[in-house]
Amino acid sequence: MKEDKTISPSFTRRNFLKTAGGAAAVAGLATSGLALTPWKAEAASLPKKWDETYDIVVVGSGFAGLAAAYEAKKAGASVIVLEKMRTPGGNSIINGGVVSAAGSPMEEKEGIKDSPELLLQDMLTAGLNLNHVELAKLVAYQSNETVQWTINELGVKYKDKLSQEGGHSVPRMYSTYNQSGGAIVQQQLAKLRELGVQPKTQSFLTQIYRDADGRVKGVQIRERYVFPNVNSGKLKNIKAKKAVVLATGGFGNDVAFRTIQDPRLISDFPSTNQPGATAEAMREALRIGCAPVQLSWIQLGPWGSPDEQGMGLSPFFAQLCAAMYGLWIDTKTGKRFVNELADRKIRADAIIRVGNKCIAFTDAYGYSLGEKLIAEALPKLMERGVVKKYDTLEQMAAAYDCPIEPLKETIDKFNKGVLAGKDEEWGRYLQKNQKPLGPGPYYALRLTPKIHHTMGGVHMNVKAQAVDVMTDKPIPGLYAAGEVTGGVHGAVRLGSCATLDCLIFGRIAGQNAAAEKSWG
Amino acid sequence: MKEDKTISPSFTRRNFLKTAGGAAAVAGLATSGLALTPWKAEAASLPKKWDETYDIVVVGSGFAGLAAAYEAKKAGASVIVLEKMRTPGGNSIINGGVVSAAGSPMEEKEGIKDSPELLLQDMLTAGLNLNHVELAKLVAYQSNETVQWTINELGVKYKDKLSQEGGHSVPRMYSTYNQSGGAIVQQQLAKLRELGVQPKTQSFLTQIYRDADGRVKGVQIRERYVFPNVNSGKLKNIKAKKAVVLATGGFGNDVAFRTIQDPRLISDFPSTNQPGATAEAMREALRIGCAPVQLSWIQLGPWGSPDEQGMGLSPFFAQLCAAMYGLWIDTKTGKRFVNELADRKIRADAIIRVGNKCIAFTDAYGYSLGEKLIAEALPKLMERGVVKKYDTLEQMAAAYDCPIEPLKETIDKFNKGVLAGKDEEWGRYLQKNQKPLGPGPYYALRLTPKIHHTMGGVHMNVKAQAVDVMTDKPIPGLYAAGEVTGGVHGAVRLGSCATLDCLIFGRIAGQNAAAEKSWG
Repeated sequence: MKEDKTISPSFTRRNFLKTAGGAAAVAGLATSGLALTPWKAEAASLPKKWDETYDIVVVGSGFAGLAAAYEAKKAGASVIVLEKMRTPGGNSIINGGVVSAAGSPMEEKEGIKDSPELLLQDMLTAGLNLNHVELAKLVAYQSNETVQWTINELGVKYKDKLSQEGGHSVPRMYSTYNQSGGAIVQQQLAKLRELGVQPKTQSFLTQIYRDADGRVKGVQIRERYVFPNVNSGKLKNIKAKKAVVLATGGFGNDVAFRTIQDPRLISDFPSTNQPGATAEAMREALRIGCAPVQLSWIQLGPWGSPDEQGMGLSPFFAQLCAAMYGLWIDTKTGKRFVNELADRKIRADAIIRVGNKCIAFTDAYGYSLGEKLIAEALPKLMERGVVKKYDTLEQMAAAYDCPIEPLKETIDKFNKGVLAGKDEEWGRYLQKNQKPLGPGPYYALRLTPKIHHTMGGVHMNVKAQAVDVMTDKPIPGLYAAGEVTGGVHGAVRLGSCATLDCLIFGRIAGQNAAAEKSWG
Repeated sequence: MKEDKTISPSFTRRNFLKTAGGAAAVAGLATSGLALTPWKAEAASLPKKWDETYDIVVVGSGFAGLAAAYEAKKAGASVIVLEKMRTPGGNSIINGGVVSAAGSPMEEKEGIKDSPELLLQDMLTAGLNLNHVELAKLVAYQSNETVQWTINELGVKYKDKLSQEGGHSVPRMYSTYNQSGGAIVQQQLAKLRELGVQPKTQSFLTQIYRDADGRVKGVQIRERYVFPNVNSGKLKNIKAKKAVVLATGGFGNDVAFRTIQDPRLISDFPSTNQPGATAEAMREALRIGCAPVQLSWIQLGPWGSPDEQGMGLSPFFAQLCAAMYGLWIDTKTGKRFVNELADRKIRADAIIRVGNKCIAFTDAYGYSLGEKLIAEALPKLMERGVVKKYDTLEQMAAAYDCPIEPLKETIDKFNKGVLAGKDEEWGRYLQKNQKPLGPGPYYALRLTPKIHHTMGGVHMNVKAQAVDVMTDKPIPGLYAAGEVTGGVHGAVRLGSCATLDCLIFGRIAGQNAAAEKSWG
């Protein structure tokens, strides 16, 4: 892959993982990706010479960075987008491509009663009310407008049916046609190209210049950087006449930084993130005086499998087949151990509690429903041996060392509940087309939680301005958007709300940055 | 009260609250106690002139600061202790005076089987395994040695019976003779006086000087500062030839800073803390590059009463009478709503869930047992109307608008459980001398959670060195100890472990700071 190569339209999650050798396979390197920058006395000194000058310097090329660049460029500003990896898109390009919209035309068509207020309440409930309410409110109230903007302005294509993730009161999720955030990123990149902007890849942020007057005035980067070698590339100073927009993402793959906040997440803890989801920019932001928010809330996805790397395809089966129509079973006891449709935190905590000795399984009926929803994923999961087929319950139990009698009892009990219309044991919501589990074959997948999203980050306000740790006031010339920020989601992020968060605050950052007065 | 007044031996929690007009009464001012320091370009420039010079500058005069000063002075260093308030002692002097020791002589005398490992496990369980294990381990393994040190070296006097707090596997708590941390602080102050060190009060930290080489070399303070007026007093620069020890406590009374981390804790949320428990020093530490740890975990004490200010005396009744021998009741339903002996977080969350509409009550038997344990507190609680006496259940129910029939059923059910030796409903541990609740009189107290401890803070290592946010390495010349640090307690601090934390890491900081080489 050549440097500065822009993304090709055929770039998908799957060939990303192939070219990168599998996200988790190289994730180990990320620990050495730490920029071991010493205390910088020169923090407040601007460089003698600027190598390049733009109105706006956007750091990061996921949903948020690209949205900021697009709005800033449209408003007439000169813009550069910096990306440390070889390809743009960050975690956004490998995400699941679901976006919530409260009060959407599709909801109207499907007769779903929803409102921004209901989405906000769902976000606050999941967030344990640790959300910065004014930020969450903005996301909920701009959700539909934003999804429509992706359709009308960016040309993103979605499936023609809404779906529903754990913690949402109603089905309100738009899914991209290919079930990948890449479908949005591609359109963002295409639109930016039309405006003459292409992300400058292999450009690693090494310093944010904050001047003696408190204003951020530019950045230092390593050009032609090769992740994760912090000494690779050549130092270069880029002046930001109006503002720097920090859109550098979360730190799910930064072992050193994440274990400070959550010591359980040691190096062999798997992650759904791309290898570059490390904390160098977050650390630098904190060093120049950004206030930290809720860094210790790190979300684990409960639908991961130890039998594939990174995000993989397991969530489709674990959620849409097993959680909705089958069961999740503790293989030591043969019993259920959690409401299979509880929120991500509750389920991930439960999996940890049973020591990862658990499977998600369903019968032929559940599998066939999954086939309709996610036509491509299931054969691939079977092919790769992530999902396995067993003709009888005995065979499945034997494969996972699960005691057969308790397992039979568990299924009997659940089936009786299905017939009675109520899951007495765990209070799970039963689907309208739910059936008792049949006699076989069965399809099963091993479960493991994977680090998925870092809710905390730098403190930003409703204008997407980064906030100073000393004064609680905006840092002039510095905006922040997306997973690098904290507060929107509080303790637990709802599925399908991260893309919204990134797009909304990215756009706000770009618009406001473009409206800044140049300092020089 | 004159400035620079050192503490008198008769200084106790009660006259502190009297002279201060009640901690919570002035707590409102603390919001304006924020040091609105702008971005400091001069952060890396040392002052032209040092007004005073010491080997060690200790900031803060609670358990941790005084322990650091004592060890440093004993090791031959010159030491100054800075305290921003008019009197030394911080939150330590108004704390409950309980300290855990695992493997103590008193445990041996009482036949209690305990070990440092068991204390560590209790800490990790309460901490939801977010604890920095190496720090928690050090606290658990040095717990007995430290309590014995307070006895043998400081001359602290304890009661001759161990007690037990929620979350501890066994009774292992030493209680000071007057049930106040003041009993320890007084001895620390007396010992320091013998060595010629007296805290310099009304000395407010405005800047930590971190030089171009990354080393901390001194501080700027406001002398004759009058809390919370950030413009009061005169600026002064104090050189620290060996090190600065940051022991400035938590931020439980800093509305602005705490709501960034936990937006639920708005200004009228009550707190047990002294008015000076604000975040100025924490912010300054973050500004100069200390890494933040788990700032969003803020502990609420579940045993507070809305009918008295600050910590008050309500915990004695709510815990030792009502939680151990009586019941906690949701007055809207007449039912119990939590295991009365669950940990602080579980109970505080439960109180919030019932909208603070709840009481803790016991009968004459529970009250009489309380009288033996806490002879002084109960009459005062009655006098002040915090605990109220009712001759009949009907009278008590009427006083709190509680439906009488469900309340009767609740008591019947609990009493049957007592006779059967098992609390079926909530699984509460039943005391050996537990009796069914009698016919009256009853004693009751209204419950409200109060902000009690901030688990998060600056990142420190086992040597009590503050850690740099960029490098994860120690910041030369900067130590930190006590509530200003994070990681020891993880998500939830166990009662009686904060004093240990402060004393142990305070001593380590003092010893290591004294062993540093002078920079000039």
